[in-house]
Amino acid sequence: MVITLLTDFGDWDSYVAAMKGVILGINPQATLVDISHHIEPQNISQAAFLLHTVHKYFPRGTIHLVVVDPGVGTGRRAILLTTPQAHFVALDNGVLSYIIEEKAPPPPGQALRERGLPPGLQAVNLTNTRYWLHPVSTTFHGRDILAPVAAHLSTGIPPQEFGEAITSLLTFPLPHPQPQPDGSLVGHIQHIDAFGNLITDLRREDLPTGRMILEIAGRTIEGLSANYAEGEEILALLGSSGYVEIAARNGSAARLLAAHIRDKVRLKKTP
Amino acid sequence: MVITLLTDFGDWDSYVAAMKGVILGINPQATLVDISHHIEPQNISQAAFLLHTVHKYFPRGTIHLVVVDPGVGTGRRAILLTTPQAHFVALDNGVLSYIIEEKAPPPPGQALRERGLPPGLQAVNLTNTRYWLHPVSTTFHGRDILAPVAAHLSTGIPPQEFGEAITSLLTFPLPHPQPQPDGSLVGHIQHIDAFGNLITDLRREDLPTGRMILEIAGRTIEGLSANYAEGEEILALLGSSGYVEIAARNGSAARLLAAHIRDKVRLKKTP
Amino acid sequence: MVITLLTDFGDWDSYVAAMKGVILGINPQATLVDISHHIEPQNISQAAFLLHTVHKYFPRGTIHLVVVDPGVGTGRRAILLTTPQAHFVALDNGVLSYIIEEKAPPPPGQALRERGLPPGLQAVNLTNTRYWLHPVSTTFHGRDILAPVAAHLSTGIPPQEFGEAITSLLTFPLPHPQPQPDGSLVGHIQHIDAFGNLITDLRREDLPTGRMILEIAGRTIEGLSANYAEGEEILALLGSSGYVEIAARNGSAARLLAAHIRDKVRLKKTP
Repeated sequence: MVITLLTDFGDWDSYVAAMKGVILGINPQATLVDISHHIEPQNISQAAFLLHTVHKYFPRGTIHLVVVDPGVGTGRRAILLTTPQAHFVALDNGVLSYIIEEKAPPPPGQALRERGLPPGLQAVNLTNTRYWLHPVSTTFHGRDILAPVAAHLSTGIPPQEFGEAITSLLTFPLPHPQPQPDGSLVGHIQHIDAFGNLITDLRREDLPTGRMILEIAGRTIEGLSANYAEGEEILALLGSSGYVEIAARNGSAARLLAAHIRDKVRLKKTP
Repeated sequence: MVITLLTDFGDWDSYVAAMKGVILGINPQATLVDISHHIEPQNISQAAFLLHTVHKYFPRGTIHLVVVDPGVGTGRRAILLTTPQAHFVALDNGVLSYIIEEKAPPPPGQALRERGLPPGLQAVNLTNTRYWLHPVSTTFHGRDILAPVAAHLSTGIPPQEFGEAITSLLTFPLPHPQPQPDGSLVGHIQHIDAFGNLITDLRREDLPTGRMILEIAGRTIEGLSANYAEGEEILALLGSSGYVEIAARNGSAARLLAAHIRDKVRLKKTP
Repeated sequence: MVITLLTDFGDWDSYVAAMKGVILGINPQATLVDISHHIEPQNISQAAFLLHTVHKYFPRGTIHLVVVDPGVGTGRRAILLTTPQAHFVALDNGVLSYIIEEKAPPPPGQALRERGLPPGLQAVNLTNTRYWLHPVSTTFHGRDILAPVAAHLSTGIPPQEFGEAITSLLTFPLPHPQPQPDGSLVGHIQHIDAFGNLITDLRREDLPTGRMILEIAGRTIEGLSANYAEGEEILALLGSSGYVEIAARNGSAARLLAAHIRDKVRLKKTP
């Protein structure tokens, strides 16, 4: 059984290793895979995006353990969400917003809000202390609650054993392109990768059938390139996650355009 | 069988991978777990602290391979230390000081010194060349001696096969809070984690039963917070390793306080 | 079966994890080992050097998956190279130059050029789409072609199933020391490791039997040290990869000498 780990712990402490030790003590057969431990400290939306794009590449039934937890020690819930594809052991802080969104559009509004689960998804509030590591610290529930729950789950303990069923989770509104009166579409940068590529919220189905231009940071990009090696200095392409990406040939688009997450990208049909 | 790896090799060379290749060539069934490869170059005490706090979370019998080796090629010994909890394959340079200390207090003094093993611990000087990788380089004993010994150990070769028994190891004096004439206790920062949290040498049992204040870098912190989200900008709490930590709410205490390892932290009872 | 991964993807995205998910979906028994994901973006020769020095430490039959791919989406081929020691699943962009070179010297010239395979090596052009992940993106063939091929190969599918046999690959000329009219030998820095050690292309067999001096960046180093702890501030030794290294005692030779890859190092016999 595969258990993945996604945290903001970085790589020069032993926090990740402590979680792995706990897991292997419970299930020595678990296959552990790091997704990333370089989420910016407490950046829930970055973790949510990475989880969203990567989880579909793992085998069905994979357990994803996500520990980005600015609210540790406060009242926020530790939860297990089960979908037809995977299990997610995480905190109820919005980090699973995309997972729920893949089934249904989010409600309007800006703030984190309670949201009913779409059909086919089950969630459990992790309150059964029998599956925790004792004594439980006040500051590291990833090690003391989430890791042992993920490990026990991987041995075949059914989800409902870990606590009571819940029917809603907290989610944040996801970025979505906004149609404009002039017929253009205003999308947003929702992620910047390590190469400096800008991943927008524009999908293949948002693209016009004819020619198009993108406007970002005062620059105009005509049409989509087939790959990173072709096109102008700044180019756009349909990236590997299914979103339109803005990239720089042999460089960092983020640096060249001084771009940030949530910046706007305008998509226009050309006449 | 779990084999962990803790080194100062960083992550952009292939030194760690070479050790893993050697191990898997000897024991394809070994489960490899990275503790950290971001120990500061040759910082033995940092590696010693991480090993100390993390090893208790691994299953009994785990083999910990530690390669921080400023003295490679000099006379320093390669050793195997076996405790009731784990095996440690390392260099005899003080990196196991906390492991031995957990059983008995250290002798007074500042320098690295020979120290008899407490009861229940066995150590071996790794001199049996039969279990080494040949030819042995002069500069990478982690790959050529420690990795193959850890791998053979994981296949069931008994410790005494790897060399002659030894009864003492080199240790450095560990940080300990010092009681002061005025009734206060002066502790020290013994580790700074990636979030900038300052982990002191003050333990739960050092805390007064009543109210208390901590003084660090001219600042005063009243009482302990329950978690990182609550309290003043600079706060103190009982951290996940069992030590008092100084943290900054949504920031780096190390940066805000310009703090360094070995800096003092004064603990006072309040009247 | 061991599958290693070597990429320039860094560690704060989920690209590496996506490849691992794909592999484990095909072969849940695969043992995954990271070589490095910190190759400088698109630095093919750095990846080639690390692969060269590390692959011989892995068990026979290991599958090395190498994704440094500046030409993704262009006509460059995805290939599988099989040697008596290992399999290499990579792009045909020179990253396997050292692997082929270990069997025969490179042709003269500077540019990337087609080169016939030495005896005992077989290569396949990965054109059989049956073993790809569909839909195939235009920008991430590591995930969509190379990872699934490596995974299927690890389950026992024979190499010839993945496409048609090819008899040559693209290689770049490897650094080699050049004998000079005055009897000295001019070598080159071919890699700088994370400690700042300078790894040259001078091998044990290039060293004179008597005394010798090395000249680099206007400095003179007399003789070889036995280890990093002994010798002058700047010292030379025979490194763990079998090449002469220039190192700084307790520091970074790269920084102290302001050294770069391809810089020259002169080796002279002393009278």
